[in-house]
Amino acid sequence: DKPPPSQTPASGGLQLESPTIAERDNLSKRESGVTPSSPMRLRMEAFIKENQQEIVRALEAVDGKRFQQDKWDRPNGGGGITCVLQDGNVFEKAGVNISVVYGALPRAAISKMRANHKALDPDVESLEFFAAGLSLVLHPNNPMAPTVHFNYRYFETANTDGSTNAWWFGGGSDLTPSYLFDEDVIHFHRTIKDACDAHDKDYYARFKKWCDEYFSVKHRGETRGVGGIFFDDLDETEKDQESLFAFVQSALGAFLPSYLPIIQKRKDMPYTDREKQWQQLRRGRYVEFNLVHDRGTAFGLNTPGARIESILMSLPLTARWQYQHEPDKGSREERLVNVLKKPVDWV
Amino acid sequence: DKPPPSQTPASGGLQLESPTIAERDNLSKRESGVTPSSPMRLRMEAFIKENQQEIVRALEAVDGKRFQQDKWDRPNGGGGITCVLQDGNVFEKAGVNISVVYGALPRAAISKMRANHKALDPDVESLEFFAAGLSLVLHPNNPMAPTVHFNYRYFETANTDGSTNAWWFGGGSDLTPSYLFDEDVIHFHRTIKDACDAHDKDYYARFKKWCDEYFSVKHRGETRGVGGIFFDDLDETEKDQESLFAFVQSALGAFLPSYLPIIQKRKDMPYTDREKQWQQLRRGRYVEFNLVHDRGTAFGLNTPGARIESILMSLPLTARWQYQHEPDKGSREERLVNVLKKPVDWV
Repeated sequence: DKPPPSQTPASGGLQLESPTIAERDNLSKRESGVTPSSPMRLRMEAFIKENQQEIVRALEAVDGKRFQQDKWDRPNGGGGITCVLQDGNVFEKAGVNISVVYGALPRAAISKMRANHKALDPDVESLEFFAAGLSLVLHPNNPMAPTVHFNYRYFETANTDGSTNAWWFGGGSDLTPSYLFDEDVIHFHRTIKDACDAHDKDYYARFKKWCDEYFSVKHRGETRGVGGIFFDDLDETEKDQESLFAFVQSALGAFLPSYLPIIQKRKDMPYTDREKQWQQLRRGRYVEFNLVHDRGTAFGLNTPGARIESILMSLPLTARWQYQHEPDKGSREERLVNVLKKPVDWV
Repeated sequence: DKPPPSQTPASGGLQLESPTIAERDNLSKRESGVTPSSPMRLRMEAFIKENQQEIVRALEAVDGKRFQQDKWDRPNGGGGITCVLQDGNVFEKAGVNISVVYGALPRAAISKMRANHKALDPDVESLEFFAAGLSLVLHPNNPMAPTVHFNYRYFETANTDGSTNAWWFGGGSDLTPSYLFDEDVIHFHRTIKDACDAHDKDYYARFKKWCDEYFSVKHRGETRGVGGIFFDDLDETEKDQESLFAFVQSALGAFLPSYLPIIQKRKDMPYTDREKQWQQLRRGRYVEFNLVHDRGTAFGLNTPGARIESILMSLPLTARWQYQHEPDKGSREERLVNVLKKPVDWV
């Protein structure tokens, strides 16, 4: 089908540029919606959108207060929805954020990523990419109730003809208590392990170790919390795309069952001012990890045009830094720190 | 003079190694104390030690509470004194810290520093270095009273025979109010400018600009505060060592006169809970700058064996992150943010 003559002069004698993946995806969504045969980009986007709303509803039922929902667009395609509940009955701050980004990776970023993805072409000046993810951080009021975090994401780069160049999944979920209730930590890990085991008997052990290594507040010689799982760069060298997507769906699906029983048990426990202050100090360490060491946060803060408020929704409402605070010998606070210095196998 | 026979076998036929600069400095201090003809290392160390104690005494007089003083040693020579006052009558947290470090710079660090110091030899595997500095951060309780910071430091590298290879001074002082009182900011800048002008009529303008550029919370598009001065890498290409030391002495000497009148005026002003909360939000931004952007903090956190509690004494006792907080139109809070988005010439 020749283009009508009126269009030919507009292309100035050059070939018409092939559409970007953002344009393709928009067209595909408009024409046929999202089905199991849609590209993974659209399926992942639909999956995280559904799950964001389901999780927001479940957390509103726990807290009794509603989330503020902000929908935002990125100028070159994509955007996101940031849901935040602040000063709630149960949560001091709760953030559930999805973002969908269509953009171009500069050459330096490509070289870095090639370490893990040999399919990336090192000789191009820039590569079109797609990234979609769902992140959650919950900071409860009660110091007996742990902070929790998860992030699940899908990344893809495109060839100049719009076909997929490289793709991978990443993610994980981890728990950060101020006071240790072994039964909570065991429940959290066991729920995640069951989700992993359904897909690969090695996943839990591998990704638990990866989590302890990643969430390390190196300058303190402590982990951020009591772990969970973390994985990145899972691509075709690991398993086929369908299997990995199924795994990510199960892992994300395990979040509510892993955390809701814990928050229900702890949200109304009595606590002292001293215990609240210890929680504030632990939140200071959370801030240190996120601002000094977290690669995701650093990537976000360095992305031109990024929505800073969505990236930093992970920070607690309040935090504290007290010079040379040392927990008392034999105290519960000391026991937590000992576990953070030497990660434990919980299941 | 031949060494006595009993020593010759111990050196195993090799030449006796020349003493490190730490060893030389220790010997020199023991033999003749510190005089105007001592090496700059020892003079700077003596200067910052005296000033630390003078400033601590002056701040104790303002606050009414005593500083906790911790003396610490580094295994390979050097050490420091960290003075912290916490939960005071005037200061929520006040830290005054000196550190003296003798160490070895690895090759990567040398290449980086060569950008500013051509005297550094790019072909050696490591270089002995000396660094001494005095840092101060004061976070007052009252939101009408500004946070203030200064740091003055001297850096030197040694040739293998112990002679000086490269040396430079760095430093600066800057003010971070939560509420803007123009007269305070003008007084602060004018006092510093007078100290600069006595040495070089160009210093204030150059170093004021450098300060605005350095203390930029890039991801927020704001400066950390209302500035002051900042300079680094001042070496023999700038002025001779004596002149630069004299300038650093004047700049540091300007600190108490630049800040004491401000804290006296603001420490007992009435304020509301809302104003206290705004201060807490501004402290969150202070934490963001220090943990994400400050080169000194990053250098410290990455130094093996560094005393983390001394490095992070700069963080406020309490801070707050509130999702999408926007100051009201026409409010004092908005005026501050406008000034942080577009630095002002105060004198």
